[in-house]
Amino acid sequence: MDKEMILNWLHELAQGQLSPDEVLKKLADFPYQDLGFANIDSHRNLRNGNSEVIYCPGKSVDQIVQIFRALAEKSQNVIATRAGRRVFQAVQSQIPDAEYYQAARIVALWRNRKLTRGIIGVLAAGTADLNVAEEACTTAEIMGSKVIKIYDVGVAGIHRLFDKRELIEQCRVLIVVAGMEGALASVVGGLVDKPIVAVPTSIGYGSNFKGVAPLLSMLNSCASGIGVVNIDNGFGAGVLAHRINLLGEIK
Amino acid sequence: MDKEMILNWLHELAQGQLSPDEVLKKLADFPYQDLGFANIDSHRNLRNGNSEVIYCPGKSVDQIVQIFRALAEKSQNVIATRAGRRVFQAVQSQIPDAEYYQAARIVALWRNRKLTRGIIGVLAAGTADLNVAEEACTTAEIMGSKVIKIYDVGVAGIHRLFDKRELIEQCRVLIVVAGMEGALASVVGGLVDKPIVAVPTSIGYGSNFKGVAPLLSMLNSCASGIGVVNIDNGFGAGVLAHRINLLGEIK
Amino acid sequence: MDKEMILNWLHELAQGQLSPDEVLKKLADFPYQDLGFANIDSHRNLRNGNSEVIYCPGKSVDQIVQIFRALAEKSQNVIATRAGRRVFQAVQSQIPDAEYYQAARIVALWRNRKLTRGIIGVLAAGTADLNVAEEACTTAEIMGSKVIKIYDVGVAGIHRLFDKRELIEQCRVLIVVAGMEGALASVVGGLVDKPIVAVPTSIGYGSNFKGVAPLLSMLNSCASGIGVVNIDNGFGAGVLAHRINLLGEIK
Amino acid sequence: MDKEMILNWLHELAQGQLSPDEVLKKLADFPYQDLGFANIDSHRNLRNGNSEVIYCPGKSVDQIVQIFRALAEKSQNVIATRAGRRVFQAVQSQIPDAEYYQAARIVALWRNRKLTRGIIGVLAAGTADLNVAEEACTTAEIMGSKVIKIYDVGVAGIHRLFDKRELIEQCRVLIVVAGMEGALASVVGGLVDKPIVAVPTSIGYGSNFKGVAPLLSMLNSCASGIGVVNIDNGFGAGVLAHRINLLGEIK
Amino acid sequence: MDKEMILNWLHELAQGQLSPDEVLKKLADFPYQDLGFANIDSHRNLRNGNSEVIYCPGKSVDQIVQIFRALAEKSQNVIATRAGRRVFQAVQSQIPDAEYYQAARIVALWRNRKLTRGIIGVLAAGTADLNVAEEACTTAEIMGSKVIKIYDVGVAGIHRLFDKRELIEQCRVLIVVAGMEGALASVVGGLVDKPIVAVPTSIGYGSNFKGVAPLLSMLNSCASGIGVVNIDNGFGAGVLAHRINLLGEIK
Amino acid sequence: MDKEMILNWLHELAQGQLSPDEVLKKLADFPYQDLGFANIDSHRNLRNGNSEVIYCPGKSVDQIVQIFRALAEKSQNVIATRAGRRVFQAVQSQIPDAEYYQAARIVALWRNRKLTRGIIGVLAAGTADLNVAEEACTTAEIMGSKVIKIYDVGVAGIHRLFDKRELIEQCRVLIVVAGMEGALASVVGGLVDKPIVAVPTSIGYGSNFKGVAPLLSMLNSCASGIGVVNIDNGFGAGVLAHRINLLGEIK
Amino acid sequence: MDKEMILNWLHELAQGQLSPDEVLKKLADFPYQDLGFANIDSHRNLRNGNSEVIYCPGKSVDQIVQIFRALAEKSQNVIATRAGRRVFQAVQSQIPDAEYYQAARIVALWRNRKLTRGIIGVLAAGTADLNVAEEACTTAEIMGSKVIKIYDVGVAGIHRLFDKRELIEQCRVLIVVAGMEGALASVVGGLVDKPIVAVPTSIGYGSNFKGVAPLLSMLNSCASGIGVVNIDNGFGAGVLAHRINLLGEIK
Amino acid sequence: MDKEMILNWLHELAQGQLSPDEVLKKLADFPYQDLGFANIDSHRNLRNGNSEVIYCPGKSVDQIVQIFRALAEKSQNVIATRAGRRVFQAVQSQIPDAEYYQAARIVALWRNRKLTRGIIGVLAAGTADLNVAEEACTTAEIMGSKVIKIYDVGVAGIHRLFDKRELIEQCRVLIVVAGMEGALASVVGGLVDKPIVAVPTSIGYGSNFKGVAPLLSMLNSCASGIGVVNIDNGFGAGVLAHRINLLGEIK
Repeated sequence: MDKEMILNWLHELAQGQLSPDEVLKKLADFPYQDLGFANIDSHRNLRNGNSEVIYCPGKSVDQIVQIFRALAEKSQNVIATRAGRRVFQAVQSQIPDAEYYQAARIVALWRNRKLTRGIIGVLAAGTADLNVAEEACTTAEIMGSKVIKIYDVGVAGIHRLFDKRELIEQCRVLIVVAGMEGALASVVGGLVDKPIVAVPTSIGYGSNFKGVAPLLSMLNSCASGIGVVNIDNGFGAGVLAHRINLLGEIK
Repeated sequence: MDKEMILNWLHELAQGQLSPDEVLKKLADFPYQDLGFANIDSHRNLRNGNSEVIYCPGKSVDQIVQIFRALAEKSQNVIATRAGRRVFQAVQSQIPDAEYYQAARIVALWRNRKLTRGIIGVLAAGTADLNVAEEACTTAEIMGSKVIKIYDVGVAGIHRLFDKRELIEQCRVLIVVAGMEGALASVVGGLVDKPIVAVPTSIGYGSNFKGVAPLLSMLNSCASGIGVVNIDNGFGAGVLAHRINLLGEIK
Repeated sequence: MDKEMILNWLHELAQGQLSPDEVLKKLADFPYQDLGFANIDSHRNLRNGNSEVIYCPGKSVDQIVQIFRALAEKSQNVIATRAGRRVFQAVQSQIPDAEYYQAARIVALWRNRKLTRGIIGVLAAGTADLNVAEEACTTAEIMGSKVIKIYDVGVAGIHRLFDKRELIEQCRVLIVVAGMEGALASVVGGLVDKPIVAVPTSIGYGSNFKGVAPLLSMLNSCASGIGVVNIDNGFGAGVLAHRINLLGEIK
Repeated sequence: MDKEMILNWLHELAQGQLSPDEVLKKLADFPYQDLGFANIDSHRNLRNGNSEVIYCPGKSVDQIVQIFRALAEKSQNVIATRAGRRVFQAVQSQIPDAEYYQAARIVALWRNRKLTRGIIGVLAAGTADLNVAEEACTTAEIMGSKVIKIYDVGVAGIHRLFDKRELIEQCRVLIVVAGMEGALASVVGGLVDKPIVAVPTSIGYGSNFKGVAPLLSMLNSCASGIGVVNIDNGFGAGVLAHRINLLGEIK
Repeated sequence: MDKEMILNWLHELAQGQLSPDEVLKKLADFPYQDLGFANIDSHRNLRNGNSEVIYCPGKSVDQIVQIFRALAEKSQNVIATRAGRRVFQAVQSQIPDAEYYQAARIVALWRNRKLTRGIIGVLAAGTADLNVAEEACTTAEIMGSKVIKIYDVGVAGIHRLFDKRELIEQCRVLIVVAGMEGALASVVGGLVDKPIVAVPTSIGYGSNFKGVAPLLSMLNSCASGIGVVNIDNGFGAGVLAHRINLLGEIK
Repeated sequence: MDKEMILNWLHELAQGQLSPDEVLKKLADFPYQDLGFANIDSHRNLRNGNSEVIYCPGKSVDQIVQIFRALAEKSQNVIATRAGRRVFQAVQSQIPDAEYYQAARIVALWRNRKLTRGIIGVLAAGTADLNVAEEACTTAEIMGSKVIKIYDVGVAGIHRLFDKRELIEQCRVLIVVAGMEGALASVVGGLVDKPIVAVPTSIGYGSNFKGVAPLLSMLNSCASGIGVVNIDNGFGAGVLAHRINLLGEIK
Repeated sequence: MDKEMILNWLHELAQGQLSPDEVLKKLADFPYQDLGFANIDSHRNLRNGNSEVIYCPGKSVDQIVQIFRALAEKSQNVIATRAGRRVFQAVQSQIPDAEYYQAARIVALWRNRKLTRGIIGVLAAGTADLNVAEEACTTAEIMGSKVIKIYDVGVAGIHRLFDKRELIEQCRVLIVVAGMEGALASVVGGLVDKPIVAVPTSIGYGSNFKGVAPLLSMLNSCASGIGVVNIDNGFGAGVLAHRINLLGEIK
Repeated sequence: MDKEMILNWLHELAQGQLSPDEVLKKLADFPYQDLGFANIDSHRNLRNGNSEVIYCPGKSVDQIVQIFRALAEKSQNVIATRAGRRVFQAVQSQIPDAEYYQAARIVALWRNRKLTRGIIGVLAAGTADLNVAEEACTTAEIMGSKVIKIYDVGVAGIHRLFDKRELIEQCRVLIVVAGMEGALASVVGGLVDKPIVAVPTSIGYGSNFKGVAPLLSMLNSCASGIGVVNIDNGFGAGVLAHRINLLGEIK
């Protein structure tokens, strides 16, 4: 509608009802973002593979359902992260196609299932890190990336990691999920030269300080080429890896 | 049992039941590590655009010069990071082609200057963050990425950032360098959907805690798609951004 | 009554029943604060717009009700902060006029509803920050300030903030409430030159450290003119903004 | 010149050389900030009492002199903070009117010396806090606020503070500068109902942690109405107090 | 019995059944602490005014009852700290004289109620600090010190503290209990020259960090003569103050 | 080049210039990894005294039972750490021989009960540290070490520790478990010259910071020869002490 | 003179020149602290054994000399703490009687050398802690306490401590100075029931964090009766111990 | 001489000059440690392979030389750690046999050079960690352990580590020295089942926090059997590894 308003002014100017100076003044006073910023949002949707996201914590079930419905009308894919089963049931009662990815704690409406050719490899150190890894996987998949899961490859049994080297080589970008001391990121970074997104998890106890130990480990990795996201932030890792993965697709 | 299997193959080879090439192929397919890690290293060089890196702190000038010379024989481009002028002079006395990038504190031998078509945009918040930003730029360039510098775009004068939006849109991947509270990463992340590598700097005082404030800021960004590297780690950001940038090149 | 006692001594002195030295000694021994300090408290009430405050945590429901009743006799407006619904019900059973501001978690007796002409603008970054923002709003309003709410203007969708610039310009003082990385305070501080009271919230996870990330962000803001209060301290922000706002009223 | 460009388009539209749709498209593509954001900066100057600021750390003496000269042409008052004597001498060699406020570590060009009627009271706990207090005073004064200094009123000799109560009552806003445990902010906050800007200083040792102790003390003050700035940030306190002070002036 | 064994040896030596060298060897091998260390314990009881203490957390109700009974046989006064009502009921079922000090969370057997002439003054800043203050009071009283309580004298209403100055002057040693920013310790330390035991409490939120803010405040107090105990350690403060108080008694 | 070298050998083998065994030996000497990582694992089992371990947190009861059964087939002894009674009951329903060590929170299948001659002494400071101490004891015992328990020897009653000196001298290696300030490790380290494994526990409150105080204490011990494990990591201490203990056995 | 003014009013009242109400008003307006607070200071001097203190850091040599001279006129003993030799020389040039206690880094004028009968025992763990211990000793002595030094009794050689037990028993109050892990305070607290003032020192490295390790150790001591002062705060320990020591003197 | 005194008493008892009770009383009063504790020290020397240690920081050169000479008379081997060249020169001027191990910063008198058969393997991640690694090596060697150095095996080039696996397998105990993120300890712990002593170093920058990152990494290692010493504590690691190594020698 903003465009209409501006177009009206221009038509009035063309018809002599307004002078150039009057229009200039109107334009100057016009909240500038109405011209351009809205585009950001539509651009955003285009680039995100037509997916919209709801972060559930701090929102009531009702609020989540309402936002979910609104987004489901504008966007093919919708994901709600950090969602409990109760949230899923409420969403599903309104949008029957919604699915629940329990391990990832994600409620999703996944209508556009076209995937990239490039692959995101998601490595997880231990079984306790799986929730975060799954959040990364599901996020990246629903946004449109092909994903392979390479789990239980912690450095305490380092041969399991080396057994997967061929698989790892096939990926375009890697997500490394690890709690405890988070050494997996460094070891993977020492093996391959691909972009790595490292996700520390809060798995551990005592001087782990709820993920601070692997966070510092990953930030200080002696291997280069590692970008770190917040503790337990599987979603953020999925988004970043997807964006990197897309770069290899577009041509 | 692995030994037996290999021994069997060798016996079959000795008996003419297998050819040397068949055995070699078997060995190559044999649990990954059998061929040899050295391959990793050569892969590494290929992908890094034939660049080798020396991290200077903790090494004597003599050691640096020695390593630099050795690398200069194997590799077209060599960079020594966190290098003072004294290091440069010592290197240059042996390798006259070496150059000094003072703001980046990098000594480099830059023989292969082929650059990517894709661009890395390096944004810096304040003039005090320039050393780190320059380290990122020079690293990425010498590794082979085209770089544009978008400096002095801190959020205290947010219009300067918005003036550069078109330039930012032309980049394939962004590096955001910021000290103080590091809000620039979030603001850029709210404007574009490109992969962002965020570098907190130690610029600030008091409760900045030598870069902890921007580090936490960047890790907790409300905008997605941001990978964070260590405080003042311009080099690491340059490597990661270069690797991401390469994904858009290869076809 | 203290004044009476002193007056008695002075009368006895005037009547020759006491000598000047005797009175001097009595005065010297008299708890000095009885002369003057009580004034502080009455001054306090006058300036606070005749509002009294109870901070609920650590007090029993009975204690809160008792204090609330006592204050309701001396003061027109009374607010009890961080109050659950159970507290409200107990208060209301004794003081039927008491109201419950659920989002703000405030029980209030609001009899004097005269408001300032000057406006406090309360900006909140995300929906999860609303409780704290509401605490600030309700506190400031019941103390006597006009308040406008500018919510959901986080920097991840920075155009929503810019859409509100005209509204923001109409305010005399701003409260900025933000969790995650708290970048909103810096961005607002880069847009306007008004006094800003920044409130970090504990919204976030992992390296957010329950509000430490936005707290440091706000303390290190590259924009000047920002005063920070404790994490989640909506009440304190409301009081400070109200006091600042009053300065523009008095003439 | 941006305005001219737009005006040209509008004239061409008025003259039928462009259609409304063509102009709309041009406007949409036009870097929006060219319309309005530059205004922010001029607004900024107006409101800041025509003062410009340079933060010296991380800039070379040459850079500082260059920026100082540029600002001295646009603005009546210019201050460079955290400036050593060497910086002053370099500035003075070019701008002879520049003065050095040694205790405040500020180099200033102070041409417009009109002051507010309202007073900022700057309280400092100990003699070791004076540098920070002076930075606050000089900043506020050169921006245009009347300032009174109430120094050496730490709580270890609390009567010295009480001796100054009348003086404190005359101020419109208070800056409280304190290191060690920073208790002064709470005590002052318990005495008056004025807006207080608290500045923790890094004065202390051991578990003071370079100002963390007073910072936490001030953020957790049991007295309300206190906004805290970064450790040793006298400049920021001066700016915030000046902005608050201005509210009482304008009518 | 150890003494008996040694005495036996000495008798055997006196009777010529053992030689001096044999006895010396036996003594050297004898677990040395059997000679002297047991004395420590009995000394301990004597000096502690014949009181024994059980710290409840981490012990089962059964264990507590058992230890309580054992101590009740050797010692006139017994206290169990951090005890819930359920602990009290279990103890009382066996030792009917046991009493419950609910606010102090102490179960006590208080048979010897002789008190010192010297007084410990226990000051508490806010009503939320009372549990800790009561723990200090009850501990000190049952150990044998006379105690007076001076509560609700936080610095936000500093006149209430000054009203109690005469009372404070009558004490031999002071315990200052405060949460939030803990400024009360400094203010009291600025008023009197008595030994002060400061107890930070975990009352507060956000950057209070569960008592770290007042802990640092108290450790960094600009007033001298303050010894600090652990956060919420009312018991430890009571013991230390009692020991100090005893010094003024003995003659 | 590695491939060529191997191919050469294979050709020489095919041509009879080398025998299969010679080639095998060459391959075995060839960069280490050529033989196979699986060997590492079998070595591991041998050395660990044929014990396998499951760390329960973050695994479902079903997962634990399944892993337990699988390990029970390959290994004589199996322990599941940090296991609740519910886990035990589920395991026992499938493996009736499984036992529950409640204080250690360990479910174990203990079929090979052969113990070392060398003794691990496990010292614990207080009764509240017993869970962690028991975890260390049971871990070490089931792995095959003889263990003696020396509990309740905290430094507050230091004679109790000295009473046990003879017992301590008989041990080959010591585990010291302590919470609060963790001083026991230093005191024991000052008495004996044996290898000491120190385990800080999270017993304490306030500035104990859930075990950080004893952790730092142990890391900074003025006595040498102390290796520290994570807070509450009784299991890790048991494993390390067992490995050290084994060194004295093997001949 | 304040007293005179009041006395004048009272005389005028007695002579009928002023009415009781007029005098009451005058008294109410009279700056209250003029009545009583000055007394605090003189009380202070009396109790501190006529000693005055200057804390040197953050003061210029000139300032120190000036304050020292002023105090030397009012007070028999004066100490300047954390003073370098240069400060001493400047003071001595004006006050020839001043002495320099180098290990304690104290410049003192010690005219009244009367000492208490009660003894403060100052224990230090290592030779590196001596500066802090000496500061405590010299402070306490010049304030008037008898002091004995019990140095080099760290727990790594615990028998050296036990050798001094008799000496320790003779003291009325103990100061325990220790860096590294600070275990000495707990061990001493486990041996005696005297009031203990614990001083953590910044001696150590790595995870000692400049005294944080012993600070936490001392705050969390399993022995009761320990009051802790700031890291390296020998002066504060000396003052507190002296005040405690005085309690045993006065009768 | 203590023994003589006791022996005298016993002779007097044997001769009837003292009664058993008198002797018992004398013994009870006798400082107990005189009997037995001195033994500890001699035991200590025996077990330490007749080596004595001086920790230099905080001691003057004179003090160090004096202690060195004293120890050189009682003990065959003496080492002074953290010693600069100036210390060496001073020691050497008095004890010409003293040697300087520059990389280890150790001055040593190494007369008894008998070594164990068992080997300590010292692994270091990077060249910057060598000082700490050398301190560990030299300490262990002079105490009597055979040592092999396996340097520059950081995980960024993990094949270099695997190349050394055979060497590693020959060791009895391992010391792992690593800065940055300290992942090497976990990787080594995943490869072998030997006791590992992990030494974090302060090599790194930014969020490395002077060794905190590798310290936490090592404490939280997912591999078991790792004991951690303080940051940069090569000496402590050498002592602990030597004590562990000795266990395999003694039979």
